[in-house]
Amino acid sequence: MVASNCIGIVSAQRAIFDTPFTFRSGAVLTRYELVYETYGTLNADKSNAILVCHALSGHHHVAGYYADDPKNTGWWDNMIGPGKPVDTNKFFVIGLNNLGGCNGSTGPSSIAPLADKPYGASFPVVTVEDWVESQARLADMLGIKQFAAVMGGSLGGMQALQWSLSFPERVRHVLAIACAPHLTAENIAFNDVARNAILTDPDFHGGNYYEHGVVPTRGLRLARMLGHITYLSDDAMADKFGRSLRSGKLGYNYDIEFEIESYLRYQGDKFAAYFDANTYLLMTKALDYFDPARACGDNLDKAFAAARADYLVLSFSTDWRFSPERSREIVNALLHNRRNVSYAEIASTHGHDSFLMQNEHYHEVMRTYLERVAKEVAV
Amino acid sequence: MVASNCIGIVSAQRAIFDTPFTFRSGAVLTRYELVYETYGTLNADKSNAILVCHALSGHHHVAGYYADDPKNTGWWDNMIGPGKPVDTNKFFVIGLNNLGGCNGSTGPSSIAPLADKPYGASFPVVTVEDWVESQARLADMLGIKQFAAVMGGSLGGMQALQWSLSFPERVRHVLAIACAPHLTAENIAFNDVARNAILTDPDFHGGNYYEHGVVPTRGLRLARMLGHITYLSDDAMADKFGRSLRSGKLGYNYDIEFEIESYLRYQGDKFAAYFDANTYLLMTKALDYFDPARACGDNLDKAFAAARADYLVLSFSTDWRFSPERSREIVNALLHNRRNVSYAEIASTHGHDSFLMQNEHYHEVMRTYLERVAKEVAV
Repeated sequence: MVASNCIGIVSAQRAIFDTPFTFRSGAVLTRYELVYETYGTLNADKSNAILVCHALSGHHHVAGYYADDPKNTGWWDNMIGPGKPVDTNKFFVIGLNNLGGCNGSTGPSSIAPLADKPYGASFPVVTVEDWVESQARLADMLGIKQFAAVMGGSLGGMQALQWSLSFPERVRHVLAIACAPHLTAENIAFNDVARNAILTDPDFHGGNYYEHGVVPTRGLRLARMLGHITYLSDDAMADKFGRSLRSGKLGYNYDIEFEIESYLRYQGDKFAAYFDANTYLLMTKALDYFDPARACGDNLDKAFAAARADYLVLSFSTDWRFSPERSREIVNALLHNRRNVSYAEIASTHGHDSFLMQNEHYHEVMRTYLERVAKEVAV
Repeated sequence: MVASNCIGIVSAQRAIFDTPFTFRSGAVLTRYELVYETYGTLNADKSNAILVCHALSGHHHVAGYYADDPKNTGWWDNMIGPGKPVDTNKFFVIGLNNLGGCNGSTGPSSIAPLADKPYGASFPVVTVEDWVESQARLADMLGIKQFAAVMGGSLGGMQALQWSLSFPERVRHVLAIACAPHLTAENIAFNDVARNAILTDPDFHGGNYYEHGVVPTRGLRLARMLGHITYLSDDAMADKFGRSLRSGKLGYNYDIEFEIESYLRYQGDKFAAYFDANTYLLMTKALDYFDPARACGDNLDKAFAAARADYLVLSFSTDWRFSPERSREIVNALLHNRRNVSYAEIASTHGHDSFLMQNEHYHEVMRTYLERVAKEVAV
């Protein structure tokens, strides 16, 4: 049974861009495609659009389900739908698969126009700024001059923040959830281990594994296992798995023994079976690079000087990947620039993953904020 | 220049045990060897001996240097020597390479007596209890009925604790530094990712890589990189590396860019060049398995009921691998058993690695405690 307030059947659409796109790195794509979905109805003056940006492993299928695959509900379906915090009776919501992704948008596994083979290693390293630029082109195509809101969690939250810096006049509200103004050395270190797992997998072939008919499964699996440790909280792991043994006794070998091992290996295997390793590399690099303060002498206050949006910043008490302290850095910089900021630290045991979870307080804060946004919008 | 209070030239010794050794797993070694070093002089009644147990990557070369390799000072030389906190003018100090190690004691890379090839995967999984048992045999051989103290940091601290449980009458003082009464689910998770990096390296060959003339360097390197993240504190990484770029600008590729990446990869490469992957696996498994409370219905108070020693328990403020909270669990269990316990949480920015560092407060606490121990000993 699908809940009555599910958006219901949705379908993916495809936008084709034939104007060359220049990345921050200087690399150029002569054409690219973005896969996206929309929910709700765009109003007459096109003022009720909300852009949802995805995180590391996300994509365009944010809410609802496909007619031919009813069990595959969107990754943020608990948040978005009729009567939900992001109310599709009021808002026109857009989800897309980012440039460089592996869910239909142009990425490393796409066929490069002239080479007649997948881009592989030749696909440009993409930054949060690049994504925002490419998303703005999608907005242009849809005739949306200004978003009512841009929102996202984690890496998605960074894109939402960047929107208000790259296009201050094109976004009225930014909802930045469980994110940070930049990665710490420790954050980068985890990403670097994950990347090295992929880069040193003999099946990686310098990124051109498609041509060899193999996939760097081992590396991608390790990367995901490691990622999962940082998505959960120590307490959540202790509560869920503790030191429980699968068979009740020690095996004195290297098979799965503890429940936590079973969970991690399962998550790693599942992910490695469908996600593209090159996309994983790109995503981690975009995370590492995001740092709006860098161009302003590491002064985050200065970085936000151009911002014109209002902000909702949310963090989760047990998130140690991007802790509440990191969100407060963002809030402080915004306050120094006299922006309207709402901030809440949500109590949750689920660590960084909390932003994807059903949580009454979290969803109420989102609902209340977006009800205010909806009042500014002529339906 | 070697500091004047360095123990000076030392040399390794070898103990051969021809009595079969039965592991907790039920596996048996018909013979084994332990490499060890001693510093200072054993007194007439053999009451001034201190056993130093090593952690994951440690070994028997704890202090001093070799005549033919003067730059290779022991890993705990700042702690042990004449006039140092562990004063070799007063104590007879023993360091050994644990069974299963790769620094000279019998381990997976040793030739198995009957097979005429390295043990490889056939080397038994070893537990902290096994190590203590094998160390007790070394003590027997040296004629030491009771240690003045058994000490160690991290996994070494776990062995020190186990000594007071396995042989309550054979140890007067336990110095357990930066350790925990058992690993959390998160601790095990990190170990499992490290193990999987090794186990899935195509050069691992099920643990019998010696016969193939290869080494699972990629996996071992990843394991060490990951380990290093957990040895340092977030703050220490931020202070030391921050977001500094090696070349001062972004490269838009997967070469080393951030200083933290350079550090991690260097540490990984260095370690993978000398350490044995099978030993690494064994060490992580011994960590996962250590849990004296398990046999007592997860009641740590009961687990320490047999203990007779006095204890010094030390933790470090920024250690997130084995946080001060974990040390306090040990202290509480000891207090419930009316043991004499001294406890200190040392302020340090170096995370788990603090136990190896020069730190005035830390060394003063050690010195003061051991001066008391020395007074009990007839020189």
